[in-house]
Amino acid sequence: MIKKVLIANRGEIAVRIIRACREMGIETVAVYSEADREALHTQLADEAICIGPAPSSQSYLSMENIISATIVSGADAVHPGFGFLSENSRFAELCEQCHITFIGPPSHVIASLGNKQAAKNTMAAAGVPVIPGSEKAIYTAEAGFEEAEKIGYPVIIKAALGGGGKGMRTADSPDDFAESFHTAQKEAQMAFGDNTMYVEHFVRKPRHIEFQILADQKGNVIHLGERDCSVQRNHQKMIEESPCEIISDKLRKKMGEAAVKAAKACGYVNAGTIEFLLDRDGSFYFMEMNTRIQVEHPVTEWVTGVDLVKEQIRIASGQPLSYRQKDIHITGHAIECRINAENPEKGFRPSPGTITDMYFPGGKGIRIDSAVYSGYTVQPYYDSMIAKLIVWAKNRDEAIRKMQSALGEIIIEGIDTNVDYQYEILNHPDFLTGNTDVEFIERMEGRGNGA
Amino acid sequence: MIKKVLIANRGEIAVRIIRACREMGIETVAVYSEADREALHTQLADEAICIGPAPSSQSYLSMENIISATIVSGADAVHPGFGFLSENSRFAELCEQCHITFIGPPSHVIASLGNKQAAKNTMAAAGVPVIPGSEKAIYTAEAGFEEAEKIGYPVIIKAALGGGGKGMRTADSPDDFAESFHTAQKEAQMAFGDNTMYVEHFVRKPRHIEFQILADQKGNVIHLGERDCSVQRNHQKMIEESPCEIISDKLRKKMGEAAVKAAKACGYVNAGTIEFLLDRDGSFYFMEMNTRIQVEHPVTEWVTGVDLVKEQIRIASGQPLSYRQKDIHITGHAIECRINAENPEKGFRPSPGTITDMYFPGGKGIRIDSAVYSGYTVQPYYDSMIAKLIVWAKNRDEAIRKMQSALGEIIIEGIDTNVDYQYEILNHPDFLTGNTDVEFIERMEGRGNGA
Repeated sequence: MIKKVLIANRGEIAVRIIRACREMGIETVAVYSEADREALHTQLADEAICIGPAPSSQSYLSMENIISATIVSGADAVHPGFGFLSENSRFAELCEQCHITFIGPPSHVIASLGNKQAAKNTMAAAGVPVIPGSEKAIYTAEAGFEEAEKIGYPVIIKAALGGGGKGMRTADSPDDFAESFHTAQKEAQMAFGDNTMYVEHFVRKPRHIEFQILADQKGNVIHLGERDCSVQRNHQKMIEESPCEIISDKLRKKMGEAAVKAAKACGYVNAGTIEFLLDRDGSFYFMEMNTRIQVEHPVTEWVTGVDLVKEQIRIASGQPLSYRQKDIHITGHAIECRINAENPEKGFRPSPGTITDMYFPGGKGIRIDSAVYSGYTVQPYYDSMIAKLIVWAKNRDEAIRKMQSALGEIIIEGIDTNVDYQYEILNHPDFLTGNTDVEFIERMEGRGNGA
Repeated sequence: MIKKVLIANRGEIAVRIIRACREMGIETVAVYSEADREALHTQLADEAICIGPAPSSQSYLSMENIISATIVSGADAVHPGFGFLSENSRFAELCEQCHITFIGPPSHVIASLGNKQAAKNTMAAAGVPVIPGSEKAIYTAEAGFEEAEKIGYPVIIKAALGGGGKGMRTADSPDDFAESFHTAQKEAQMAFGDNTMYVEHFVRKPRHIEFQILADQKGNVIHLGERDCSVQRNHQKMIEESPCEIISDKLRKKMGEAAVKAAKACGYVNAGTIEFLLDRDGSFYFMEMNTRIQVEHPVTEWVTGVDLVKEQIRIASGQPLSYRQKDIHITGHAIECRINAENPEKGFRPSPGTITDMYFPGGKGIRIDSAVYSGYTVQPYYDSMIAKLIVWAKNRDEAIRKMQSALGEIIIEGIDTNVDYQYEILNHPDFLTGNTDVEFIERMEGRGNGA
């Protein structure tokens, strides 16, 4: 069993991991930047080691400093949390070379899943649904038309060098295809000086649905149901839920089995997340696999009762999973709102500064994961998320009302936050009826209706 | 359905009830004493009405003031919480007379259960086990001896006017009886000027086990499993758990059925608690029924998922129970520690004053029910409990480690608290192995081994 864990992270996830270790009787070592001397994770761990100046590149992203701190402190394992080095296969490899247990999958698995096209090919080969698309570059409308017929409408025509929506057009039917292709290609040529195109099936207003999986070193893999993370702003998740109301037990079983298959196909070990796009007709497509604990893991923890961080540590220690698939039951409904230090009225500009007064609600069905406190100074160097508010109730309607009530109780003074913005979402008719997809926030903000 | 509730209480239970109402879309009216202008419940409710000076007799215990506030505010229901007027049948009756829904049982049920001997007789008649004892007064060792033979050893000989352990002796066998009787009677005569005695079966080192029940107005009654409240100091509960580790599924079923029978025997409606003494041989005896929500209700809420306060409100509104007995499943293990503003090193003397700094932990499996905040002044007029820390984990060992860890994180400055004392209990070998009974604290404190 692991005896001492160095937490290569900061903020609420570092606190989350320290608590799990403490409850398991495992010693903890925090690392901190010069800006994080007063941070909660620095105070809470059994030991704390300064690993450099505030900018992440010189501290939380410095593999050398973190490996040195691990060796100096005598920790036998590293938990990377999320962000920073958590999906860096080179860091995982360095840990392996130094005989430090990396609490996550083997480095080669991280590397193989990091290559998105290769991962997609692996999944397709294993029979996991992926978005149908042209495999070769396309230069003419005729060639594209042929691919589109094979793929099925609607399709999206994309510039090979594209980005930011440029050189990108959709076609709903064969009638639209030629015009859309020419427009997209002309735009691509002008924007990127290249007219190489691809055609892919287009999923209109999909939901972002991800499945939590756990895999031990003996090859046992289970899934813990889904999270609906469709409420996103500029691809940043804002609210996550479990379960997804529109997923039937039958579909959950099917997607869950695909997720387990995906994990097995790449030899996955530890906690991971399979991201799917879910179409309105119930079709779903593998997007990517996240090889770490997620920000939104608490919603899964609450509906299943499983402590995912403790399971990560057990798995990394070589223990078999504590649960079989049939032990996993989804009970009630959980919702998470990310509370960020930012100003929604000023383009969501980060709002660092000192918290002069703070009150978070408690009571039945309320979980707060946070690393801030009254008097704490939110640093400008890091992610603006300062807390996660998670609620649980016996169904979605009750969970929504609990979240509305809980958001209404929060007091954070001295900095700007997105609490009122979250409250607005929680009271939006489409959110209340569960009519959300990845374009929901755009519609709410009146910013057109997407690609 | 009830539309507006006046909460005839203060502190964390008032906050608990306000939150439940808000989540149900019900308006709330707080009442507060002059000392509680800055209290959280006063701030959190939709309306707040001052009902008098600080001493409870002039505010929270003033039936007239509370009834007036209810009428003035237009509330159609009163939730009494616990303590104060919650078990006062006269208050419930006043509510009934004023056509205000009292969120609790009918006044005549409160009255009948308030008479402990009558309640015991009702239960015995209904076939609920009660402690066997002499029904008539006893004046001689010979008469007592005869009763003891019928009742079964060990027995306790009690002065009719007794209290505080005076005029009280146990006898383990017929050999001890005469001497114990004479000593007890002599002591009774000296202490109370009366030599009337009773003999009862003596339960040695029992556990205090209570069953939560819910009963609707249609006569449906269910139980929600037990709470082990054996960790008491001078009859004050300090730590409560659910489930009780030594209760088998079979015994739980048997005790649960007895609890339901007890509730039915007295025509009970709303949430209530049946207190039993549990003997080491698995025998159990009805002690009394509490006709209100209990301080320790959160442990039951966490292992069953049921929101007891919301159920209370639904029942009072005339709705049927949301659950049938077969819907109730006990999952995992929950523990509650009461955090009091008191000094264990000075005889647990209350420690009112201003909280200058405060930090409560959060994260998975942590629930805080509290009505204090940083800068709040704990008043000297009321109960010293300032917070309840409740944890949940998949089994008792994990829950204990979580509680140890969580207690270690609490910061409360400016006043004295029992946090360190609770930490000591949570690390005591007998607590860890579950070897607790109502005399556990006495033994821990080295104050002899009980009666």
